[in-house]
Amino acid sequence: MNKRIVAYILGRLLQIEAILLLIPIVISIIYQEPLRYSLSFLLVALVTGIIGHLFTKKMPKNRSLYAKEGFVIVSLSWILLSLFGSIPFVLNGDIPSLVDAFFETSSGFTTTGASILDNVENLAHSSLFWRSFTHLIGGMGVLVFALAVLPHMESETVHIMKAEVPGPTFGKIVAKLSNSARILYVIYLVMTALTVLFLIFAGMPVFDSFIHAFGAAGTGGFGMKNGSVAPYDSVSIEIILGVAMILFGMNFNLYFFLITKHFKEVFKSEELRWYLGFIIGSTALITIHLSTTTHSILQALRDSFFSVSSIITTTGFSTDNFDNWPLFSQMILLGLMFVGAMAGSTGGGIKVSRVAILIKTALTELKRNTYPNRIVSIRFENKPVKGKMIQAISNYFILYVVIFVALVLIVGLETSDFTSAFSAVAATINNIGPGLGIVGPHANYSLFSPFIKILLSLVMIMGRLEIFPILILFSPGVWRRSA
Amino acid sequence: MNKRIVAYILGRLLQIEAILLLIPIVISIIYQEPLRYSLSFLLVALVTGIIGHLFTKKMPKNRSLYAKEGFVIVSLSWILLSLFGSIPFVLNGDIPSLVDAFFETSSGFTTTGASILDNVENLAHSSLFWRSFTHLIGGMGVLVFALAVLPHMESETVHIMKAEVPGPTFGKIVAKLSNSARILYVIYLVMTALTVLFLIFAGMPVFDSFIHAFGAAGTGGFGMKNGSVAPYDSVSIEIILGVAMILFGMNFNLYFFLITKHFKEVFKSEELRWYLGFIIGSTALITIHLSTTTHSILQALRDSFFSVSSIITTTGFSTDNFDNWPLFSQMILLGLMFVGAMAGSTGGGIKVSRVAILIKTALTELKRNTYPNRIVSIRFENKPVKGKMIQAISNYFILYVVIFVALVLIVGLETSDFTSAFSAVAATINNIGPGLGIVGPHANYSLFSPFIKILLSLVMIMGRLEIFPILILFSPGVWRRSA
Repeated sequence: MNKRIVAYILGRLLQIEAILLLIPIVISIIYQEPLRYSLSFLLVALVTGIIGHLFTKKMPKNRSLYAKEGFVIVSLSWILLSLFGSIPFVLNGDIPSLVDAFFETSSGFTTTGASILDNVENLAHSSLFWRSFTHLIGGMGVLVFALAVLPHMESETVHIMKAEVPGPTFGKIVAKLSNSARILYVIYLVMTALTVLFLIFAGMPVFDSFIHAFGAAGTGGFGMKNGSVAPYDSVSIEIILGVAMILFGMNFNLYFFLITKHFKEVFKSEELRWYLGFIIGSTALITIHLSTTTHSILQALRDSFFSVSSIITTTGFSTDNFDNWPLFSQMILLGLMFVGAMAGSTGGGIKVSRVAILIKTALTELKRNTYPNRIVSIRFENKPVKGKMIQAISNYFILYVVIFVALVLIVGLETSDFTSAFSAVAATINNIGPGLGIVGPHANYSLFSPFIKILLSLVMIMGRLEIFPILILFSPGVWRRSA
Repeated sequence: MNKRIVAYILGRLLQIEAILLLIPIVISIIYQEPLRYSLSFLLVALVTGIIGHLFTKKMPKNRSLYAKEGFVIVSLSWILLSLFGSIPFVLNGDIPSLVDAFFETSSGFTTTGASILDNVENLAHSSLFWRSFTHLIGGMGVLVFALAVLPHMESETVHIMKAEVPGPTFGKIVAKLSNSARILYVIYLVMTALTVLFLIFAGMPVFDSFIHAFGAAGTGGFGMKNGSVAPYDSVSIEIILGVAMILFGMNFNLYFFLITKHFKEVFKSEELRWYLGFIIGSTALITIHLSTTTHSILQALRDSFFSVSSIITTTGFSTDNFDNWPLFSQMILLGLMFVGAMAGSTGGGIKVSRVAILIKTALTELKRNTYPNRIVSIRFENKPVKGKMIQAISNYFILYVVIFVALVLIVGLETSDFTSAFSAVAATINNIGPGLGIVGPHANYSLFSPFIKILLSLVMIMGRLEIFPILILFSPGVWRRSA
């Protein structure tokens, strides 16, 4: 374990956070808030910057980075950024408890959107801004993370920091990544800016437009009203946000293709077709179900489109309180929580491509048993899927289920009903935010004990990093040997 | 598809059922029931026998049996036996609706134990006997099914009727099977008889002892009181049934080993250790949880042991109403519903061996990601597990999950809460019987519409046959081509 390079990179990230922490000060000044708000952000920015500086004082000689270091870096960075980012809330008194502030900030950086706030409207503008800004930052982090550390579709093994090749150095990785990352960031920020503009055109106040655009961009879902998007009661705002969420839940590679005019690749994308299929199918089913039970047809269509878009992209904005919906529609949403968005997006969940391959695996297994002497292979994106990759996805899914069951059991110690425990874990591990029951869209996570709040904070980070990095962080073997 | 041999074997099975249908007539005479009871069983026995005779009149010339035929035979046999076996209830008026009677009888033959009866105490002795007798018959069927058609641990492919080898004929299969089957049956019936004796010794009435021994033997769970085993309120009866259920949930190969004095093999059985580990661990956790919330320590131990034994073996007898337990304990039971009993037992569920291998797969996947250049392999029963087998188990699990989710959605159309819908599917596909909520241990399945009742009947059969046969039955390709 090359601890020096880990510390060095973490230090760099803390320095970046220190700079970003200065932005809420501008908001605080604009809205003429009491001095303690600017001071809280300034103080934390200074401390974070100094600690970051101490970590990066000396560029380490041994710059080799392996998978292990990569996993440790991403896990610790999400934890440290959340920890430092939560302190302003404690200092300015908007979220006095450090545990609560840590939950809220991890929820922000992981673009989950789960909240422990009973009354979000009590927050100062600078706090609201920072809270939602973490979504924007987290979304950028996820895009690079997906690029750098996450298993790629072709081989499902850790690419960039493969342990077999003689350690690529930090410099090389940066060079290789920085170009792609820059293009991603530009696309991401332009799309966010467009969302802000559209929201303003639709009549949303400017500040609110930024907050909601950040929430949509990171597929996070922090709002600034207790009723999330419902109080605006505007069809056009709901359509803009609904579409924006779907766009941010798409694989950003597709935008590369669009920019480079490879339209065919976009139309041919099988994952995109599955993604849109899930959205259209679920919206249709819920519209039919709601319109035959509790809603008028138009209202059913409006509420189901927004909710489906919000849940499958793992954003978590809400208009209608789906905790009051009849069961069938609720369960479709619950199912979408696990599907999640497309790979390579800012969304969470198991990811559409994995779910598609899992469904194909199930159907193939059935065919294989019906016709044992026929060769049946799985194809995805017009290519045969390798056995190794299917095995990797299966194993990921099995690990996911094992961890999920264990977590539901633990959270069940503090809830009285299965639905709440089940959906609280589903909504955090899949980075959605609101669940059902006591963690429903018009409720929050404040009822849990500090222990469960910290656990769920780590679950959000685990879900964000697709399980492995955060579990490996707690594996003693990683720390024992020094390489 | 060799339809003649399928019809021939089904005819044979119907003839056997016809003979078994005569036994309740004896009960009816002993208890001097109104004539319609004897007549209902006699009439159905005659009709079933005649139909069976028509099917078996001519031994088909082409006696080749492939996997496809095997799957069709087991699926249709469970459906047909349930259908014919349900008619006496309709004729004698104890269960007037055919749909309800079919549900109850499939529940019996699949050794599920789910009931649509609001008041089981209204049933005549002959009806009660036949209802529970189906558990005993179903249990025998499952043991042979496991021997003949089910994937074996070594290769996880269909053994006996492998399609690659030039079709083994019906005669050969019978010869090969009949020896092992006979030994199994003797063990099974001796154990059932011992359970009857022990129950009588413990003070249970003779008739009741038979009923409950049948329920335990098939790990079915039909009782004869509305409160299941609770009304007897006897610690010794609960211990006898609790232990009996655990013994019937064990792999019957282990009894072979015991009889042939291969004690080492029994002690070395890793699946047995997992099975006992689940039982002891769950009983301990629930005892601790209940004794710190609602129960006294002794009561907690008594209730948790019986419930854990009943649920993990997928029997479904109940003493304490666990629908009133606090959530954590309920969820452990819910988890055990999926684990199920050992492979090669009369129990249902995913099976301990599969769950053990799935858990090992998850842990191995984690290790593989922590140390990408170390070779990690999965061992079970002291042998390395082949990749093909892991893949087969993974695929089975994925197919299981996909079907499970779809079923919960459909059942959710008729329930108001997630717990009921989720546990109703869990309790039927895993052949347990009672679930939670509206299908809790002191409730039943009578609230569902005929459509859902028929669906759940098929789900019980699907769970019993480990999914493939029943799904293949509905695959058009199987019927199209004649071989």
